[in-house]
Amino acid sequence: MCRLLLYKGKQPILLAHLLTNPAHSIINQSFDSKLRLDHRRPLNGDGFGVGWYDSEPEKDTRITPCIFTSVTPAWNNTNLVRLAEKVKSPLVFAHVRASTSGAVTEVNCHPWNYGRIMWMHNGGIAQFDKIKRKLQNSLPEELFLFVQGNTDSEWAFALFLSFLSNPNAERFEHQELKEAMVKTIAQLNTWTEEEGIKEPSLLNFAVTDGASVVCVRYISSKTEEAASLYFSSGTRFECYQPGYYRMIKADRREDMVVVASEPLTFEKADWLTIPTNTVLVITPKLNVLLQPIKDQYYTGDRGLEVKVGETEVARIPEPKAQLFKAQVEEQMRHDRPMSVI
Amino acid sequence: MCRLLLYKGKQPILLAHLLTNPAHSIINQSFDSKLRLDHRRPLNGDGFGVGWYDSEPEKDTRITPCIFTSVTPAWNNTNLVRLAEKVKSPLVFAHVRASTSGAVTEVNCHPWNYGRIMWMHNGGIAQFDKIKRKLQNSLPEELFLFVQGNTDSEWAFALFLSFLSNPNAERFEHQELKEAMVKTIAQLNTWTEEEGIKEPSLLNFAVTDGASVVCVRYISSKTEEAASLYFSSGTRFECYQPGYYRMIKADRREDMVVVASEPLTFEKADWLTIPTNTVLVITPKLNVLLQPIKDQYYTGDRGLEVKVGETEVARIPEPKAQLFKAQVEEQMRHDRPMSVI
Amino acid sequence: MCRLLLYKGKQPILLAHLLTNPAHSIINQSFDSKLRLDHRRPLNGDGFGVGWYDSEPEKDTRITPCIFTSVTPAWNNTNLVRLAEKVKSPLVFAHVRASTSGAVTEVNCHPWNYGRIMWMHNGGIAQFDKIKRKLQNSLPEELFLFVQGNTDSEWAFALFLSFLSNPNAERFEHQELKEAMVKTIAQLNTWTEEEGIKEPSLLNFAVTDGASVVCVRYISSKTEEAASLYFSSGTRFECYQPGYYRMIKADRREDMVVVASEPLTFEKADWLTIPTNTVLVITPKLNVLLQPIKDQYYTGDRGLEVKVGETEVARIPEPKAQLFKAQVEEQMRHDRPMSVI
Amino acid sequence: MCRLLLYKGKQPILLAHLLTNPAHSIINQSFDSKLRLDHRRPLNGDGFGVGWYDSEPEKDTRITPCIFTSVTPAWNNTNLVRLAEKVKSPLVFAHVRASTSGAVTEVNCHPWNYGRIMWMHNGGIAQFDKIKRKLQNSLPEELFLFVQGNTDSEWAFALFLSFLSNPNAERFEHQELKEAMVKTIAQLNTWTEEEGIKEPSLLNFAVTDGASVVCVRYISSKTEEAASLYFSSGTRFECYQPGYYRMIKADRREDMVVVASEPLTFEKADWLTIPTNTVLVITPKLNVLLQPIKDQYYTGDRGLEVKVGETEVARIPEPKAQLFKAQVEEQMRHDRPMSVI
Repeated sequence: MCRLLLYKGKQPILLAHLLTNPAHSIINQSFDSKLRLDHRRPLNGDGFGVGWYDSEPEKDTRITPCIFTSVTPAWNNTNLVRLAEKVKSPLVFAHVRASTSGAVTEVNCHPWNYGRIMWMHNGGIAQFDKIKRKLQNSLPEELFLFVQGNTDSEWAFALFLSFLSNPNAERFEHQELKEAMVKTIAQLNTWTEEEGIKEPSLLNFAVTDGASVVCVRYISSKTEEAASLYFSSGTRFECYQPGYYRMIKADRREDMVVVASEPLTFEKADWLTIPTNTVLVITPKLNVLLQPIKDQYYTGDRGLEVKVGETEVARIPEPKAQLFKAQVEEQMRHDRPMSVI
Repeated sequence: MCRLLLYKGKQPILLAHLLTNPAHSIINQSFDSKLRLDHRRPLNGDGFGVGWYDSEPEKDTRITPCIFTSVTPAWNNTNLVRLAEKVKSPLVFAHVRASTSGAVTEVNCHPWNYGRIMWMHNGGIAQFDKIKRKLQNSLPEELFLFVQGNTDSEWAFALFLSFLSNPNAERFEHQELKEAMVKTIAQLNTWTEEEGIKEPSLLNFAVTDGASVVCVRYISSKTEEAASLYFSSGTRFECYQPGYYRMIKADRREDMVVVASEPLTFEKADWLTIPTNTVLVITPKLNVLLQPIKDQYYTGDRGLEVKVGETEVARIPEPKAQLFKAQVEEQMRHDRPMSVI
Repeated sequence: MCRLLLYKGKQPILLAHLLTNPAHSIINQSFDSKLRLDHRRPLNGDGFGVGWYDSEPEKDTRITPCIFTSVTPAWNNTNLVRLAEKVKSPLVFAHVRASTSGAVTEVNCHPWNYGRIMWMHNGGIAQFDKIKRKLQNSLPEELFLFVQGNTDSEWAFALFLSFLSNPNAERFEHQELKEAMVKTIAQLNTWTEEEGIKEPSLLNFAVTDGASVVCVRYISSKTEEAASLYFSSGTRFECYQPGYYRMIKADRREDMVVVASEPLTFEKADWLTIPTNTVLVITPKLNVLLQPIKDQYYTGDRGLEVKVGETEVARIPEPKAQLFKAQVEEQMRHDRPMSVI
Repeated sequence: MCRLLLYKGKQPILLAHLLTNPAHSIINQSFDSKLRLDHRRPLNGDGFGVGWYDSEPEKDTRITPCIFTSVTPAWNNTNLVRLAEKVKSPLVFAHVRASTSGAVTEVNCHPWNYGRIMWMHNGGIAQFDKIKRKLQNSLPEELFLFVQGNTDSEWAFALFLSFLSNPNAERFEHQELKEAMVKTIAQLNTWTEEEGIKEPSLLNFAVTDGASVVCVRYISSKTEEAASLYFSSGTRFECYQPGYYRMIKADRREDMVVVASEPLTFEKADWLTIPTNTVLVITPKLNVLLQPIKDQYYTGDRGLEVKVGETEVARIPEPKAQLFKAQVEEQMRHDRPMSVI
């Protein structure tokens, strides 16, 4: 099972604050993961990738991310450590890989980009081989030829791109990205059902165009839990002692959002669980929107129904529900309710 | 343009005699190539591979090759240098790569194997992108899923395998391998013609099942020359001073055959040019068979018509034809005519 | 903390039986180690090396090992997996590394060889920086220049070589190798004491000339335990179900010896603990000799005093002592007592 | 023979303009070098490194460079290509390596840094092994332990650092850097002469503290030429068609200086040859100072004596001297004489 992390903020953040400094950073997670579901392969040493945007999309409509990948483990990659100490970015995707499909080569390392759009995946499409040909044949020529590696994750990215009205567009609305994400999951479900695949797929995808971010915590099962996914937001990400960070929420402003497979800090109150089978959208202006995916795997009783303003967030499972509820209510008191689409 | 080399002998040869010791070995060719056609990219530093069989197929019907590949240049790969000093094999394929299609990753390094069958390619399928989908859709599921990389060469291997009656068979006749090779070329020609591709494809392929070897020097053009390909045969490959080798033909026995993009020795008489658009077969008993491919790109006047016993070898182009003729006639005097299928 | 493994047998063994097939092989140990002392860095993903001899030293006095190293983790190294399926050897050293000193580069991967002599190390010289210059200045020019990397382990190898009467000799007696090993430890202890270093050094070294093997389980402390080291011997190493091996002791013959940081099998009776601060010698004829190192860190009460024939083995600590004693006595009943120098 | 390149400008430059875009960039030089002296090894595929500073030293006295190195050839390093498209810097060192000493590992790739000081070398210290121990023993402990690799170049860097009054200082005067450079060369000459080494050393070194740059074109011979070194300066580095650049000198301002083993552009007038055995200093304010090294290898007649203001530049060899003289005189007419220390 892989690990992923994404950051979007009003201010650029030094990559080291996300990747290398925190005692429970994604790199340290790569050899000391506490929350993973899959205990067969207890570490993520099969490659690493980080992608970032260096400017605001308003200023440059031809923005593309810079992506650094490596097949050597993240924790001893000198280049990564050095870059993390220098590079600042307002929008970062990072991924450590434990290979489940596709050889260990740089072309199989997440994230990938297509022009300005960047994609990564934590999980796996069940028995992908059985639907690979259908997926490929559904793609327009340009996207069919775009794929360089051999992973379910990269082919899922091509499928996602095929649901955009124009994957080469200069800008995207977050609604279009979200809808393409939901269609991608629906299409994968259709194909796996057609093939009679019973094993659930773990589909924690994240995508961005450099302005909005859409990510999803999803499993094609009514009864099993998706791979973990958390988010945190605040005014700044503060290091209060070496290796120890916390999210500061000052002045009721929320200037940054972090989504991660596992919390980066040891402050439980910093992190909200994203409910299973939920899409999370971060808008260009840093509003966070949560929406349940109400498909054949939707169950009203998976989590706690939380009212935020006039609308529903989602149910989240006990025993975390009470904590989550308290956190959301606390947020509401601060007058910046978590929006729901 | 890549370089390839293959050896088949009655006795195992130390890999160093082929790969690292000769002053004009395939590794030294990789940074000092004299004969290549493509001058845009004057070196082969984009990866390396060597595959070998460690036992005779008579003794073990489940024989598979051992393949060592690397994306670092062959000339500074310490592991390769060490292995070459220790490993002996009666059947060796080696390849240095200058990438023309597919990223520089280990999965894109030649040779590849499917069970006991091993394959490599020097050249390129013209505008492969235009026929990639047709090729993939022509494959049975098992071969479609077998491909791990993203090169025209590996997909051509899958196509070749699809022309075998059973690619998982325990043994193959060299005739079947040769026929599958000819069908592979014919099918690629059909597709490229359907797509209106005018640029010729360079299709120097080599394949073996661990017992027979089939290789081809081919271009889909009536007027242009294929990428170079030479062969040499003899009793032993002798090092007469450091870096300098020659093929010894003692006792009229031919105990080894070497085929290479460029001669390994500086002894011109050691090497015969394989005529353009010709299949060369090395049988398990080390007979060498040459056959022209008489398809739409066949031209009777490409080379010299050489009679060997009752049969034709092939025409080979001037000015090398006279040398070749003399060599063949010399061989004939020694009573071991080069056979023709 | 690293892991090491060595095999010496009358018959060559396929490397896969040691490296890749066993469920608890050294490669699987590299990400699932159960016995390590150092819990700060819970895996060995910082490189890998395996060295082997391909012929018997009787036949070739210029024998040198073939060494394959890699900075990518052992568990996803395709070349290693393929080689392990093909290479057979009567004498194998293997090592997985968790870097404690020296950058993660191939030159810092164990084992190293100097001509026919091969060396590896599990542990670390305490505060090596403080004695590095003394060590270097003690070396003759040839050995000073021989070192290519920057680890305490490789410099300790150079020191060991300096204690041989002629490190370029064509053959060595196991006594000379053992004495050089003991001198190496004594010299390292002298220098660390001169520098006032209190932290103990973990000095599990192994060396071979291709004929004899000398290894040591050692710590420069009277009270702390050395890093673990086990050995097993028998007639053959049998795979009774995929991933599960056991040592078979048939006909009272002992045709192979395995020494490893952790047992390779789940059969406890297969493995004897090598007592702390003990040298183990495997002679060319596969006799195993154990000798305590009676220096300033020797304590008579560390383990159980076991009488084997007329001589002492060593004390080993409770609670394993009873098991060990029973094993030794069982061995004695089989009339092949473990010898003691 | 390696290749090096350095840039210092008032404005940050996108690395791609130096490294990847120019048809004759340092990366393209790495496989198509036209001017190298050493024809034995006709390419630089043994590693690559680029180091850059991301902020002005006035703002941050703890500035350190970011260094990216790789053992795979520069021309197919995807990470490098991507970074070069994103990273901008006012001070860049780049180096491609053809190994002459030291294994091909990342620790042996140039440039190296010690705090804020960065170093690279094109050339080789003749018979370095003979002076290696003297050099090491001359170093203070901290610098002795600093070296991680095994090249003459990195040890020469440690020697250079030992000639600074405080290598950990927060700022340096360019005079101190220049004097340490001259002392480094003098010390290396003393040791090589003591050892009776007749072969000349090629000592093209470059060093920077992030503010000033000092580089030298030097050979320890009165008769042979040093490895080539050129410089160019102007207002901006303009791409007038893809792959083709020229240096624009507008408004008499000189806002950037480039020094390189080979010219990056095909405009001869853009490039001045740095005379053999000359130190070139680029001050923080972008003044360029040239000074001959008047040691035992100094010959007054190596080049043309060019008067600039009241002082001598240096002699430079015919036939380039006339061109150089014309260029310098042209510069003088523009009222911004090349200064001489």
